[in-house]
Amino acid sequence: MAQKPSIPKGTRDFSPAEVAKRNYIFSTIKTNFEKFGFQPIETPSFENSETLMGKYGEEGDRLIFKILNSGEYLDEFNKTVYDFFFDFYKNYLNYFIEGSDKSLEILESYFNTDKIEEELKRLNKGKVEKIKNFVDNDLFDVIKKELALNEKYFFELCQKNSKEKIEGLDFLLHDKAGDLAYISFGNWFKNVKSGKVTSHISEKALRYDLTVPFARYVVQHQNEIEFPFKRYQIQPVWRADRPQKGRFREFYQCDADVVGSNSLWQEVELVQLYDSVFTQLGLGGVTIKVNNRKILSGIAEVIGASDKLIDFTVALDKLDKIGEDGVKKEMLEKGISESAIEKVQPLFNFTGTINEKIEKLAQLLANSEEGMKGVNELQFICDNVTTLGLQTAFLDLDVTLARGLNYYTGAIFEVAAPKGVAMGSIGGGGRYDDLTGIFDAKNKMSGVGISFGLDRIALVMEEVGLFPEAVLATSKALFLNFGDKEALYAMKAIGKLRQKGIKVELYPDKSKIDKQFKHADRRGIPFAVIVGESEIEREEFGLKNLATGEQQKVDFATLVTLLQ
Amino acid sequence: MAQKPSIPKGTRDFSPAEVAKRNYIFSTIKTNFEKFGFQPIETPSFENSETLMGKYGEEGDRLIFKILNSGEYLDEFNKTVYDFFFDFYKNYLNYFIEGSDKSLEILESYFNTDKIEEELKRLNKGKVEKIKNFVDNDLFDVIKKELALNEKYFFELCQKNSKEKIEGLDFLLHDKAGDLAYISFGNWFKNVKSGKVTSHISEKALRYDLTVPFARYVVQHQNEIEFPFKRYQIQPVWRADRPQKGRFREFYQCDADVVGSNSLWQEVELVQLYDSVFTQLGLGGVTIKVNNRKILSGIAEVIGASDKLIDFTVALDKLDKIGEDGVKKEMLEKGISESAIEKVQPLFNFTGTINEKIEKLAQLLANSEEGMKGVNELQFICDNVTTLGLQTAFLDLDVTLARGLNYYTGAIFEVAAPKGVAMGSIGGGGRYDDLTGIFDAKNKMSGVGISFGLDRIALVMEEVGLFPEAVLATSKALFLNFGDKEALYAMKAIGKLRQKGIKVELYPDKSKIDKQFKHADRRGIPFAVIVGESEIEREEFGLKNLATGEQQKVDFATLVTLLQ
Repeated sequence: MAQKPSIPKGTRDFSPAEVAKRNYIFSTIKTNFEKFGFQPIETPSFENSETLMGKYGEEGDRLIFKILNSGEYLDEFNKTVYDFFFDFYKNYLNYFIEGSDKSLEILESYFNTDKIEEELKRLNKGKVEKIKNFVDNDLFDVIKKELALNEKYFFELCQKNSKEKIEGLDFLLHDKAGDLAYISFGNWFKNVKSGKVTSHISEKALRYDLTVPFARYVVQHQNEIEFPFKRYQIQPVWRADRPQKGRFREFYQCDADVVGSNSLWQEVELVQLYDSVFTQLGLGGVTIKVNNRKILSGIAEVIGASDKLIDFTVALDKLDKIGEDGVKKEMLEKGISESAIEKVQPLFNFTGTINEKIEKLAQLLANSEEGMKGVNELQFICDNVTTLGLQTAFLDLDVTLARGLNYYTGAIFEVAAPKGVAMGSIGGGGRYDDLTGIFDAKNKMSGVGISFGLDRIALVMEEVGLFPEAVLATSKALFLNFGDKEALYAMKAIGKLRQKGIKVELYPDKSKIDKQFKHADRRGIPFAVIVGESEIEREEFGLKNLATGEQQKVDFATLVTLLQ
Repeated sequence: MAQKPSIPKGTRDFSPAEVAKRNYIFSTIKTNFEKFGFQPIETPSFENSETLMGKYGEEGDRLIFKILNSGEYLDEFNKTVYDFFFDFYKNYLNYFIEGSDKSLEILESYFNTDKIEEELKRLNKGKVEKIKNFVDNDLFDVIKKELALNEKYFFELCQKNSKEKIEGLDFLLHDKAGDLAYISFGNWFKNVKSGKVTSHISEKALRYDLTVPFARYVVQHQNEIEFPFKRYQIQPVWRADRPQKGRFREFYQCDADVVGSNSLWQEVELVQLYDSVFTQLGLGGVTIKVNNRKILSGIAEVIGASDKLIDFTVALDKLDKIGEDGVKKEMLEKGISESAIEKVQPLFNFTGTINEKIEKLAQLLANSEEGMKGVNELQFICDNVTTLGLQTAFLDLDVTLARGLNYYTGAIFEVAAPKGVAMGSIGGGGRYDDLTGIFDAKNKMSGVGISFGLDRIALVMEEVGLFPEAVLATSKALFLNFGDKEALYAMKAIGKLRQKGIKVELYPDKSKIDKQFKHADRRGIPFAVIVGESEIEREEFGLKNLATGEQQKVDFATLVTLLQ
């Protein structure tokens, strides 16, 4: 390979320093998930296509990475179709040129004889020489035509009793006889029409998120699961999105969900969980925004147009930027009536404490049963979160919050980075009453969950400088290598240090000492241990602090103390 | 979906208990990797196909899972081809039935006019009625024929100056104009011949192991890496193997490799690393078998047939089972001469200490330069490992060890489970002088590494009962839920306990107390905390040990002590 190797667009290599930082975030999230009683599960990277398809809307389906059924499926398939026709035409021409009965016999076994005769007559117009050229130059074009003309017979051959013959042609790509007809070229083409082709070439797909696999897991294992089931899952997902800055084709999701309980205490706990994680990461001052799908339904009732709800929230969200008049102008443009806008006038002055905001909503939605349900749910969550207190996060009510509108049925959450950090949401979630219904219509279970956006959290932490230095710590000391005798002495000490859990290394080669020091420096290893003949004699170690340059001779016990 | 959902063959869901056990092993391996100075990297799940293909032999290549270029690529492609011809025939028939000049114009713009005229004449034989049937019933068959007949023009259309027209037909599937000709149906078929099709449909593949991605990583990032580079990587790999007991299509590999140093101290350390991990896992008594590729080359020289080396080692490996005579009989059957077998007679009585074994090899291979190199390498490794000592593992020399024969160039390792546990190898590795050569012929770097077989290690540990109970620990206590007032009181205590790092939970619903107790029991939670009105009044908590049934009233400080 002449070119420097590379990785696919939208994917990433992670260096040791990057892995260490990411693991620090994972580990903090994991610890908190478990502190809150969530248990880990893992699902396969790829699911059956039918598990995933149709769950994410048209746009989502398009972004699902599909896996070919087996590595060489298409190559084998193409080669076999080609071989089949090559063999066919070899006999075809043999019969024509040499009048070989054997060839005719084989041809007859392939196809309907009359058809063959007709074809031969047609071909007969030319000369033998010309036909020989076919084999060398134009065979493939002929094959293509033949493919179309004889397709019907080809089908029959595949579908009927010619199993042995076809196997003889290596036409059988897989071990299931039932697959035979399906994978024949003719059927391939027929299936183009019905859309079955892709599903045969590919029956598996990389997971697109962790929610659908979780729902599948719950339904599949419902008899083994003790409900309510609090699970967390930290695994990569894949999306065939157009790669761009900050958007990747492979990225981790960190989800915590509870399934099988309608209790609003879950929502209270999930707010606390966000607070706990971000506090422990040192990322104080995040804003946990809450809303409720039922409140949005109530607003839709009030403005008298549920189909305009998204337009409404999108416009309202611009209040800070374009002002009340601007927002109202946009709403009118989107077909929301003047009288409707008047009815929700309080939303244009939607400030104050959460309780004041809830009070305003209660007045606004007094006549909407659904809306009032949402208000009451929100009240419960906010009251209890407030009473119990948050460590560093702020709770806020944001009526424009409408993420996954068709998905969530109750609470909606979104976390905004601390003020001053320009970054989209670093987490989100909500309640969906029908988590498992997509797989088991008779057994709809309510789920509520939150998700952490690892990549964005990492970016924020990098920007604010929140990664502790210890995260990156490599080995504590590098033992320099002065030769095998010295290395053996060093390895004895290294073994004992490692048994005490201290990370130390031997430079593997007897290279120039400068090079070895430079290696420690580049690796960020704080100490070098020098073991020469005199140290071995005196059972000592030369310990050099690479930051200060300070050097001392110490015995093993002191070495342990200084490196611990 | 009527059917119970399932996961693809050869993949697995992992329950909380399983994840906990696997993480215990991962974490032990990881701790030891880092203690030995290895640093983690991560590479993308999928690589460019050209990075992986051709690196694993024909059999390996076949087992690589390929990913379709974009989720809907084939569907879109098929649909577009179909739409194109549907549109074509609509105009075709319009012209025939209604004599529409507009249709003729469109048709002419598609294809060569003369050809169209000819075709129309042919079709003219039938009646309008009959042709209308075409549209409803036989259109597709006609399209197929047309496809073959007009393919040449179709090519030209795609390749020449009709770009705008084709775009108008939505024929352009992707945004690159250069892809145009390539993805046309005609070229698709042409490419069948050249094998280009698959690579266009799929350009990415799931990684098959961690070694090739590591080699790619090293070459790609060689300017950022400080060598010698000790990296570890714990990530899943995928193989389209026929699933069977103990063989999965998705499984984790745990690899530690050093690249950029020829020092045999690396081999010494890798033996120690195996010892350290298995000792810490409680899996004492594993046997680390070593061999050396150069010794095998020496043996091949001695028996005078390097092509018989595998037959030779396979037969010799059966010594315990079928005895000396049996082994010799098999060797003769495989075409190894009687005189060759005589020359390696010492291998049939290959017992004693490692040093005695090495001594025997030194005599046997005295005339083989390559063989003696191997003996000396082995001597260095064994001497130093013996001098430094192992904690619980045994080191042994096994001349039949020939894993990855074409891959390794120096040391070869394999770890056998402790005696009495029926299980294949639970780890393996070796040195390959040409790790990076596959990507950068000018810069061949030596690598040496080992791998841990997670699934088998987990099976062995399960069998021997080595998982500490603490691994499975869920929450320490479940707070029962007697209603919102009590729940709030409980949540105050829960919040404080969690801040102290103690895992506790609230049962989310006010269900029957029996049900709540049963939940704690089924989840394996050891304590239940009961908070009723009287407890709230006295600021107490009822703590019930669910194993003993013992119950006591305690204040918060005592609760903390008892749950810590």
